[in-house]
Amino acid sequence: MDNKHDILELLRQVADGKVSPENAMLELKEAPFEDLAYAKIDFHRSVRQGAAEVIYGEGKTPEQIKGIVERMGEKGCRNILVTRISQETGDYLSRFVPIDYHKIPRLGIAFPEARPGRGNIVVATGGTSDMPVAEEAALTAEAMGNHVTRVYDVGVAGLHRLLSNLDILMQARCVIAVAGMEGALASVVGGLVDCPVIAVPTSVGYGASFGGLSALLSMLNSCASGCSVVNIDNGFGAGYLASRINQMEGIKEE
Amino acid sequence: MDNKHDILELLRQVADGKVSPENAMLELKEAPFEDLAYAKIDFHRSVRQGAAEVIYGEGKTPEQIKGIVERMGEKGCRNILVTRISQETGDYLSRFVPIDYHKIPRLGIAFPEARPGRGNIVVATGGTSDMPVAEEAALTAEAMGNHVTRVYDVGVAGLHRLLSNLDILMQARCVIAVAGMEGALASVVGGLVDCPVIAVPTSVGYGASFGGLSALLSMLNSCASGCSVVNIDNGFGAGYLASRINQMEGIKEE
Amino acid sequence: MDNKHDILELLRQVADGKVSPENAMLELKEAPFEDLAYAKIDFHRSVRQGAAEVIYGEGKTPEQIKGIVERMGEKGCRNILVTRISQETGDYLSRFVPIDYHKIPRLGIAFPEARPGRGNIVVATGGTSDMPVAEEAALTAEAMGNHVTRVYDVGVAGLHRLLSNLDILMQARCVIAVAGMEGALASVVGGLVDCPVIAVPTSVGYGASFGGLSALLSMLNSCASGCSVVNIDNGFGAGYLASRINQMEGIKEE
Amino acid sequence: MDNKHDILELLRQVADGKVSPENAMLELKEAPFEDLAYAKIDFHRSVRQGAAEVIYGEGKTPEQIKGIVERMGEKGCRNILVTRISQETGDYLSRFVPIDYHKIPRLGIAFPEARPGRGNIVVATGGTSDMPVAEEAALTAEAMGNHVTRVYDVGVAGLHRLLSNLDILMQARCVIAVAGMEGALASVVGGLVDCPVIAVPTSVGYGASFGGLSALLSMLNSCASGCSVVNIDNGFGAGYLASRINQMEGIKEE
Amino acid sequence: MDNKHDILELLRQVADGKVSPENAMLELKEAPFEDLAYAKIDFHRSVRQGAAEVIYGEGKTPEQIKGIVERMGEKGCRNILVTRISQETGDYLSRFVPIDYHKIPRLGIAFPEARPGRGNIVVATGGTSDMPVAEEAALTAEAMGNHVTRVYDVGVAGLHRLLSNLDILMQARCVIAVAGMEGALASVVGGLVDCPVIAVPTSVGYGASFGGLSALLSMLNSCASGCSVVNIDNGFGAGYLASRINQMEGIKEE
Amino acid sequence: MDNKHDILELLRQVADGKVSPENAMLELKEAPFEDLAYAKIDFHRSVRQGAAEVIYGEGKTPEQIKGIVERMGEKGCRNILVTRISQETGDYLSRFVPIDYHKIPRLGIAFPEARPGRGNIVVATGGTSDMPVAEEAALTAEAMGNHVTRVYDVGVAGLHRLLSNLDILMQARCVIAVAGMEGALASVVGGLVDCPVIAVPTSVGYGASFGGLSALLSMLNSCASGCSVVNIDNGFGAGYLASRINQMEGIKEE
Amino acid sequence: MDNKHDILELLRQVADGKVSPENAMLELKEAPFEDLAYAKIDFHRSVRQGAAEVIYGEGKTPEQIKGIVERMGEKGCRNILVTRISQETGDYLSRFVPIDYHKIPRLGIAFPEARPGRGNIVVATGGTSDMPVAEEAALTAEAMGNHVTRVYDVGVAGLHRLLSNLDILMQARCVIAVAGMEGALASVVGGLVDCPVIAVPTSVGYGASFGGLSALLSMLNSCASGCSVVNIDNGFGAGYLASRINQMEGIKEE
Amino acid sequence: MDNKHDILELLRQVADGKVSPENAMLELKEAPFEDLAYAKIDFHRSVRQGAAEVIYGEGKTPEQIKGIVERMGEKGCRNILVTRISQETGDYLSRFVPIDYHKIPRLGIAFPEARPGRGNIVVATGGTSDMPVAEEAALTAEAMGNHVTRVYDVGVAGLHRLLSNLDILMQARCVIAVAGMEGALASVVGGLVDCPVIAVPTSVGYGASFGGLSALLSMLNSCASGCSVVNIDNGFGAGYLASRINQMEGIKEE
Repeated sequence: MDNKHDILELLRQVADGKVSPENAMLELKEAPFEDLAYAKIDFHRSVRQGAAEVIYGEGKTPEQIKGIVERMGEKGCRNILVTRISQETGDYLSRFVPIDYHKIPRLGIAFPEARPGRGNIVVATGGTSDMPVAEEAALTAEAMGNHVTRVYDVGVAGLHRLLSNLDILMQARCVIAVAGMEGALASVVGGLVDCPVIAVPTSVGYGASFGGLSALLSMLNSCASGCSVVNIDNGFGAGYLASRINQMEGIKEE
Repeated sequence: MDNKHDILELLRQVADGKVSPENAMLELKEAPFEDLAYAKIDFHRSVRQGAAEVIYGEGKTPEQIKGIVERMGEKGCRNILVTRISQETGDYLSRFVPIDYHKIPRLGIAFPEARPGRGNIVVATGGTSDMPVAEEAALTAEAMGNHVTRVYDVGVAGLHRLLSNLDILMQARCVIAVAGMEGALASVVGGLVDCPVIAVPTSVGYGASFGGLSALLSMLNSCASGCSVVNIDNGFGAGYLASRINQMEGIKEE
Repeated sequence: MDNKHDILELLRQVADGKVSPENAMLELKEAPFEDLAYAKIDFHRSVRQGAAEVIYGEGKTPEQIKGIVERMGEKGCRNILVTRISQETGDYLSRFVPIDYHKIPRLGIAFPEARPGRGNIVVATGGTSDMPVAEEAALTAEAMGNHVTRVYDVGVAGLHRLLSNLDILMQARCVIAVAGMEGALASVVGGLVDCPVIAVPTSVGYGASFGGLSALLSMLNSCASGCSVVNIDNGFGAGYLASRINQMEGIKEE
Repeated sequence: MDNKHDILELLRQVADGKVSPENAMLELKEAPFEDLAYAKIDFHRSVRQGAAEVIYGEGKTPEQIKGIVERMGEKGCRNILVTRISQETGDYLSRFVPIDYHKIPRLGIAFPEARPGRGNIVVATGGTSDMPVAEEAALTAEAMGNHVTRVYDVGVAGLHRLLSNLDILMQARCVIAVAGMEGALASVVGGLVDCPVIAVPTSVGYGASFGGLSALLSMLNSCASGCSVVNIDNGFGAGYLASRINQMEGIKEE
Repeated sequence: MDNKHDILELLRQVADGKVSPENAMLELKEAPFEDLAYAKIDFHRSVRQGAAEVIYGEGKTPEQIKGIVERMGEKGCRNILVTRISQETGDYLSRFVPIDYHKIPRLGIAFPEARPGRGNIVVATGGTSDMPVAEEAALTAEAMGNHVTRVYDVGVAGLHRLLSNLDILMQARCVIAVAGMEGALASVVGGLVDCPVIAVPTSVGYGASFGGLSALLSMLNSCASGCSVVNIDNGFGAGYLASRINQMEGIKEE
Repeated sequence: MDNKHDILELLRQVADGKVSPENAMLELKEAPFEDLAYAKIDFHRSVRQGAAEVIYGEGKTPEQIKGIVERMGEKGCRNILVTRISQETGDYLSRFVPIDYHKIPRLGIAFPEARPGRGNIVVATGGTSDMPVAEEAALTAEAMGNHVTRVYDVGVAGLHRLLSNLDILMQARCVIAVAGMEGALASVVGGLVDCPVIAVPTSVGYGASFGGLSALLSMLNSCASGCSVVNIDNGFGAGYLASRINQMEGIKEE
Repeated sequence: MDNKHDILELLRQVADGKVSPENAMLELKEAPFEDLAYAKIDFHRSVRQGAAEVIYGEGKTPEQIKGIVERMGEKGCRNILVTRISQETGDYLSRFVPIDYHKIPRLGIAFPEARPGRGNIVVATGGTSDMPVAEEAALTAEAMGNHVTRVYDVGVAGLHRLLSNLDILMQARCVIAVAGMEGALASVVGGLVDCPVIAVPTSVGYGASFGGLSALLSMLNSCASGCSVVNIDNGFGAGYLASRINQMEGIKEE
Repeated sequence: MDNKHDILELLRQVADGKVSPENAMLELKEAPFEDLAYAKIDFHRSVRQGAAEVIYGEGKTPEQIKGIVERMGEKGCRNILVTRISQETGDYLSRFVPIDYHKIPRLGIAFPEARPGRGNIVVATGGTSDMPVAEEAALTAEAMGNHVTRVYDVGVAGLHRLLSNLDILMQARCVIAVAGMEGALASVVGGLVDCPVIAVPTSVGYGASFGGLSALLSMLNSCASGCSVVNIDNGFGAGYLASRINQMEGIKEE
């Protein structure tokens, strides 16, 4: 009911006497979500957009997650992402719903459904240790129907490794640059490509990396134009945004 | 020379004997920029992309800026953005080159050239004081040929002001959300629209806003999907990225 | 239109055919504020609550402030608080509207109107230098119709000064504790009184006070129950909240 | 003995010869608390105010807690809150004293006693993971005799979930807004309601939430008037303060 | 009246009928300070201890300072320290009261009175730029009747400069170590001498000195035993504490 | 050899031909410590001062600690403090050397030797949870021959608990104020007593206490004169410094 | 292929018709590394420089490390450093490749090969607990063919321990100063020697050492010239850089 | 007297009766510096090493600087660097001593003396605004007799500008990488060259650059081996250290 067309339609029904003012009031309040006491599930978006849904698994019990996933499945959601869950939780869920569990990013995809990979999103990492975050981004994007190219371990300290993948980078419609430590990957990539670059700082590192702060600040200060940043380790957010950008339609000139 | 087609072409000319190896080596090194001693001007991008060029004015003398702008103008650059310059510097520059100076964002546009506004970028601010940053973003986007809609002073503490502009927001291809203090605008807007949202924290505020840190952290932690963040007060960066996104062409299915 | 009774009324009028669906839609969008291009003035609250309105002066031009104040005055607002403005801005405004300017808190009260001081709010400070913030709080509360008692320079390093005002503190319905440096005043007062205590950290201090951070953290960690904290130097916020608390009506038992 | 009436009474008894100066001196020093070597129990407040007592469980051994609770129970305290204790400690205590243990907020209520729920405090959370802190607040308020309404998982990224509970929020005498991550809930709620809002940042989140710092700063910078903030995860403090506010009596006009 | 002997005496007078309970109550409240509206002056300490009094000048108007100093002088205070005042304020004060103004530490000593320098306090600095803070400490200590030895510019980067003053350091009863930048002076001195060492971090430095934070942390982490730290730039506090330590009397064995 | 008298003596022996220049050079280099490969034990101080020695146990293996303690014991050291060791390490050490292990402060005292408690040091804490740090301070001071009075759980939120111990505080030659959370204890105590106050911030607390940072800043900013601060949780450092101060001899007037 | 001579050579071969333009293009892209899917191994450097290779073990599985080490060994690499691995991982690796595991620095050296120790690098530590970092530095330097002298536990709080090793320090071609807590060792050593000093802050400490931040800031602010700093606990980086400096050849005057 | 040979010589003279023990003691204390009351000038180093001397100008009066410079000049020092002084101070000094003032780095070189530029140090900057710091480094190195090559405005966002200077970088004996904002230059350069790289973070930038903190952390976390970092804006320190490295003599094999 968060859409002006729906509201206008409702008002018309009130005018036509099909809906009483009191019921209209009720309907305005009736949210397009279901209340599971511990969570309010939002079905609108998924149905309307064909998008992947996400459940942030950390801080939820396996039972809570199961309850939410099952209800979503009944409503017809597919490719439901369940992030940051252990192998144990993944195994538990698999006893109730179909789910693909990915160990490195600690991610489950429930009610999996193959989708054609459209466009092209490149996911690049500075090092091997950035893979968990990168895979969360890549799998999210794939679940949402995007074609993803992975270019891992191309940190700027060995520039030739990055440059040898230059043509791959330049064919992307959107690049996700994942890096911890000094996070310089985003700047360098941002200077090489013309498409939007989403920088994901990771908490990989030690000492003065301060849990990803160093990479975060570095990426925010990137001198390259066309970069923006998401939260530390937020692979899902990067994948989701990259999907939005990759799937942009062209401007319709009038 | 940062493009594999150019390199391949050069190699072919070497193979054909049209270019000697030594000269090819030289050409590989010859950068597509001009060296003004204090700055290296890059012409490639502008020419290739028809994009606006930017000169970050802070920390440069009026004379240095003049030198760079003049040289760019000679090379055919138009709509050259000169950010963070005083009225005095703007006046000084106007004695040498055609320039439109905008007082609120402290921004000059040299060799201005009207461009048709394509697509639709919405720039929203939390308060009146966020206008300088918002205008830097809006003028950048306009200079790059985008249609921009401004929705100012719609902070979340007065939610009806934001909601009454909901239809404007929902028609955007990309939203730039500019806010200081607690920076909640990005989260709320991110939850309302389906297009990419670029969050710009501003240094507006006092006390525990710590020069924009509060808004920055808030925006990075946004629970809404589809948001990403640029540096504090970085209106130019947001406008530039929004332009890239707004002007995306649709995926060409094969 | 942010009130369910108004919406229900509107729906009834649509049902009665008095309002067309399209006009209802429009009205739902018509915000109870006026758009001055640079600011959206909200009249609802003031009229409905008889409350003081506030304009945060920092970062606005005298002309912008004048525009907002004048329009508010026309709409019938009284005791409009204009915070953080210089004497010059105060003088400028006084040429157009009636205004009382208070030098220490750098605060103007436009269209001033005496209101009976109800209940009792005590404003206490740790030192003399905390007075600007304390006066902003006290004048805000007075403008909103509250009786205010000031107890200044009663910091905990000279405990007898505080204890000798114990009876004044214990008669308060709400205490505002204003302190910089180590901010211990809030804890000690919070342990002495039974009413709500609003702690205001100030940026008074040097060195490791880090612009009020020390007092802020100290107040947030207060071991005394019944304390809460507002932003550093936010005298207005404390005065406004204290007014809300002081003017609480008793629970109506059914 | 921290009350001027008690001191005056004591002085009168000295004047009447009923108490010797030396004994009065002793009595002045005799604190209204009992010394258990490792803790000084304060009985005054509880008896005088009928309030719930609290024992901060973290960093105390089960034996220490048992000792304090037993002594309080003997003195007639009821609804003694024991915060942040494990299930094990709860079980241990239950062998000695009557206690209700609540698993989610890790909270025990010893010598529980039903109290009529007066007034109305609304506890709202941004997400499901904020429930432990929210329940600590809600149970504290209930133990102190307040009526509490829970509205969970209404974060601002899904604004319709919040708006559909608008009438519940608007009937509150005090709202406790509990949120982690970007903490925008407090600002939005603060703009919607007219009663005092107590914001509780939680340590829920990851990356740039920095253990609750992001939510804390966000809430302190809230542009909405009428908000104040307590320590990160301090559900008890919020519940206690909300009780004080909710149970305010009306101003007695003379 | 913050002394148990005074209270006991008062109670005796009540018992003897010399003082009525009501008057005793009043007297208990009558603070040993005078209220100047903007400040509460405390005379007790000065008279009782023969100590120097201090007025923190920053954030007070010359008129306010003059008022406080004059009243203190009338009460018999001598060697009143007025810290952090400009030459102008010093000149203004000198028109009303006798005052010695010291330019480097921006310190005035009103109603100056020579006092014999007892014991021995050594004030050492890391560099020339630490002199303002060091002089504030040294003059404070001298005004309180201590003998002070200055050893300036003996930073640890030129260890021989420090070692060549080793015998001076080893004769001190208390050392004040004043240093900015990396603040290592305190550690090294603390390892060399056996008397208490008071470390004063200064805000001297640039870059990663972060306004004295680096020196502060360094001094707090000092591996040498016998060191403690005061606030950044707090020369007065160091001088005052050093005086307390230097003037300790020996333990009276019974 | 870090003492000018020793050097002078050595030079005299060279002059007398009792020591060759080469041997003198060697002796100047021969440190008054023994090298255990992993540690250099310093015997000088202990012998000269009759002081307690300390071994910081964290990060050392039980075997390393045993090696150091045994060698010290052979050299005649007594009351050797071994801080921050587990019960297991304590048990292990007890198989080789006489040692008293204290569980709460996780502290062992090897080769224990009763010493008469001279003077008077008061150790006060804000809460029960500060006891481990307070006991480390108290036991250190006792091991060094000082009389210690403990006043625990007298935090400023219950001011009467502190004031009822006022006479104990005022009889101290030195007070150690141990507190976490907001750390206000140091300020209040500092304002009440005339002797030096050593403030020890503790890491007790949660949320915005940031591991003791809040208490640390609060104590550094204390408005009370005569306070200084040691590192967070540094009970040993406070006890050692208090001992130095308590055992000061009076000034010898010539 | 990151070397202008190689490129020139390649171009010549194209000119000579020995390589086709297309193959040259391919070769330009063919990186001097091997792609193991999870890592890109760089062989160039090792072969060219005879240097030790390093694998940062943290965040890699034993299997991944084994794969990389084996492939490197086949290519002829020797003295391959594997940092931050557990004893278990070391044991696992030893079943496949020759490896020396060092327990204190948690470091393995695979395909070990004795190299003559050239020049002189001194590694000094402030305390015993800094040994793991110091050994990582020392073993790295030794594996790269440098002579290393260890001087441990010479912190500035016991200056004579440092000074008694002065001649060792002064014979170094490069000093690595490893220290936690207040990190003053670097400043003092930097003032004593004339060769480059590499400072390594360690995370040893507690409280306000904030995980090495205190030592880091202290070292960055060192007043001694000739010092530079690497990341907290980065023993490898210090050893590697020291090797580069120690093995510098003299300037060849023309 | 900080040199073992000097001490041995002195001891020999004592043995020979040429120097009395008392005089030797005096001489040991007689520092190789001159005391100007406000500064202790150290002549040793300059004379012994033929190095440039430096006076940190900030926080010193022109008169103090003049005093120090004049005395140094009399002692024969040449190429005395006076850093961070204004043009006015430079002009003032030029009336007393020969001095070259450089406007961009705000640096004076007193008693200038041409020295042959030996070896090769490359100074590279990320942008034009980093020039003041870069010039301080370059001029320092030149004053100390090094050959310096400047490569300015080669930030990583325009990688071709950096790569086109690759051969210059690879011929360096030491590179100084100067950059603000995200500071990625150091990582990229560190990966390209084999010589030591000294990274200098600058305070250039805005927003989340936090006065150079972002560049500092980035550089400390550099994944490239062979890099080390000096304080923010510390051009002098970098130049001085680079000189030490550049002028290393080769290892003398025995």
